Amino acid sequence: MIVNNKHFESIWWSESNAEIVSIIDQRLLPFKFVVKELRTVQDVYYAIKDMHLRGAPLIGAAAAWGMYLAVLNSKEINFEHSLKEAASLLKSSRPTAINLAYAVDRSYNQIMSNNLYKEQLRAALSFAKDYTESEKKACRKIGLNGLPIIEEISQRKNGEVVNILTHCNAGWLACIDYGTATAPIYAAHDKGIKVHVWIDETRPRNQGSRLTAWELGQHGVPCTIIADNTGGHLMQHGQVDICIVGSDRTTAQGDVANKIGTYLKALAAFDNNIPFYVALPTSSIDLSLNKGISEIPIEIRDSKEMELIEGISNDKIVSVNIMPKDSKSINYAFDVTPSRLVTKLITERGNCYPNSKEIAALFK
Amino acid sequence: MIVNNKHFESIWWSESNAEIVSIIDQRLLPFKFVVKELRTVQDVYYAIKDMHLRGAPLIGAAAAWGMYLAVLNSKEINFEHSLKEAASLLKSSRPTAINLAYAVDRSYNQIMSNNLYKEQLRAALSFAKDYTESEKKACRKIGLNGLPIIEEISQRKNGEVVNILTHCNAGWLACIDYGTATAPIYAAHDKGIKVHVWIDETRPRNQGSRLTAWELGQHGVPCTIIADNTGGHLMQHGQVDICIVGSDRTTAQGDVANKIGTYLKALAAFDNNIPFYVALPTSSIDLSLNKGISEIPIEIRDSKEMELIEGISNDKIVSVNIMPKDSKSINYAFDVTPSRLVTKLITERGNCYPNSKEIAALFK
Repeated sequence: MIVNNKHFESIWWSESNAEIVSIIDQRLLPFKFVVKELRTVQDVYYAIKDMHLRGAPLIGAAAAWGMYLAVLNSKEINFEHSLKEAASLLKSSRPTAINLAYAVDRSYNQIMSNNLYKEQLRAALSFAKDYTESEKKACRKIGLNGLPIIEEISQRKNGEVVNILTHCNAGWLACIDYGTATAPIYAAHDKGIKVHVWIDETRPRNQGSRLTAWELGQHGVPCTIIADNTGGHLMQHGQVDICIVGSDRTTAQGDVANKIGTYLKALAAFDNNIPFYVALPTSSIDLSLNKGISEIPIEIRDSKEMELIEGISNDKIVSVNIMPKDSKSINYAFDVTPSRLVTKLITERGNCYPNSKEIAALFK
Repeated sequence: MIVNNKHFESIWWSESNAEIVSIIDQRLLPFKFVVKELRTVQDVYYAIKDMHLRGAPLIGAAAAWGMYLAVLNSKEINFEHSLKEAASLLKSSRPTAINLAYAVDRSYNQIMSNNLYKEQLRAALSFAKDYTESEKKACRKIGLNGLPIIEEISQRKNGEVVNILTHCNAGWLACIDYGTATAPIYAAHDKGIKVHVWIDETRPRNQGSRLTAWELGQHGVPCTIIADNTGGHLMQHGQVDICIVGSDRTTAQGDVANKIGTYLKALAAFDNNIPFYVALPTSSIDLSLNKGISEIPIEIRDSKEMELIEGISNDKIVSVNIMPKDSKSINYAFDVTPSRLVTKLITERGNCYPNSKEIAALFK
């Protein structure tokens, strides 16, 4: 999408500069926009590990590009051993990210199914390009499948502004382009439909105010940041027409694990009769699980993320501690929204009600 | 309650130092504990205006002490004019605080019903002492009326820890002592009942992490700060036994205006069958209102409170801007929880169901 009036994706490569893969250093957003050049598999490893980039689709793509750089820099004829090392290095960068292991393994197999170095390099490159392209395409399809939902509300409101509430960052920064929850919003905005987005700040890591507000703002989508406490009040007063959020993992019966706080907004949407949509790639549906609340393990992250917060003071990025000295805090990263609170799922394969039958049908 | 192993109230005066009224400078909490001495009505005016102290009961008491200082420092025999000026100065410090105007007017009338300076001074002093004492007593009664509710849960759990969730600061810092929502908690803790409090951070002003966590921690009550997004997840997993919050204004039918985000927690409590109590002095019940959502106006505060956050960096209090440069934010201060989500009201006059009949009966 657009940054400083130019089109960007969250990771890119070009023929004319074949030894470089470029990314945006997301740790510095929204305070600084810095492009980083990755030249080795180690560069990619650190970029994932230290969260220069985040978001399952982007991490998967970065890993595929890491495999390409590994082949490019290893000019030996028999490089199986070093490629294996590169693969396990990449997989160790964020051990719980499923897309990452999947991308690395598939890339490895495609590379090793060739014998000549030139072919192996071509295989690594074409896998990275295809993987990136297919992630992008899935998001584009999610956008097109979500667009009619916003369009319909806009028509019902006679073209007045459609107010959309979102939580966390399920935007293009986490994907390659378009995003998931943001994809229908970008599609509607780019089509000229009047939209306005309420962005939950999303404590404790503030992905809403730091990333979603930045990316929507750069693209020119009207938006307002609110405290995570605010959505219910807005819904009571008719100021939200629709909620759209992303999902980290969705069960076979349609329970949705997403950033902590999603459940509270879904409750408020339900209480105020406001549609609550979840946009996701079908790759994040885990058909082996059913009951989200009891079956999805919820990560407890470092409480430092609660205690310390980054911001700008005198033009410098400063981290301050906002808690009483001897206080304890705990940092649950996700919660589960039961399917009964979800209106529909929006996926690249089409939209469906959140129940076992309709979800299974997506995979036929 | 206890601070650094010593008993404190949020405002105090002593015979032996009759020209001084002392307060805790709450702007600096939890980073610094500073006691301020107020010697003139102007000192009191600035202390209220600049939020060295906050909370309706405390503001009312401070105003009463401000009237006492005004009389003390004005040794003229006929000082009606200067007392009127003092009264309107105090009332202008926080124009929307009802307790403030009420305390000032009643103090003024009691002072002026005397003729001799000595009697007038005695009237000002005794009004300030009585007002403070009666606010304190109301909180103590709220504590005693809420105690059996916690006790009963503790017994049902065979003495295991009772997990209580609270939002914002309805603690002794906002009152004189005990607090409102915290009063039953202090009463239970002091009686030896095992309690643990989940404290919502309470964005954007973080009264939960800055004040409630500090005061409960100082008093020795076990507690953990959570992001405002977290309560729903904890409730889904049986980690909350009861919610107790305060109220800024309660309608005749029991709808409750309180810090923004209270409604979301009430929804989650209802969804998980967890009792949701509101502790309040009956003076905050507004019998002229019925439907809270449509009738209670919600203050929109400066969005700077969203954008800037204070914390400690290198032992200094530093304020940082946490938003993208060109982003907009909006800061709704309160929301309304409809009575259907409230289990019971806990007041100094007893507990009742949140409906017109039972609330009216409190005032008989």
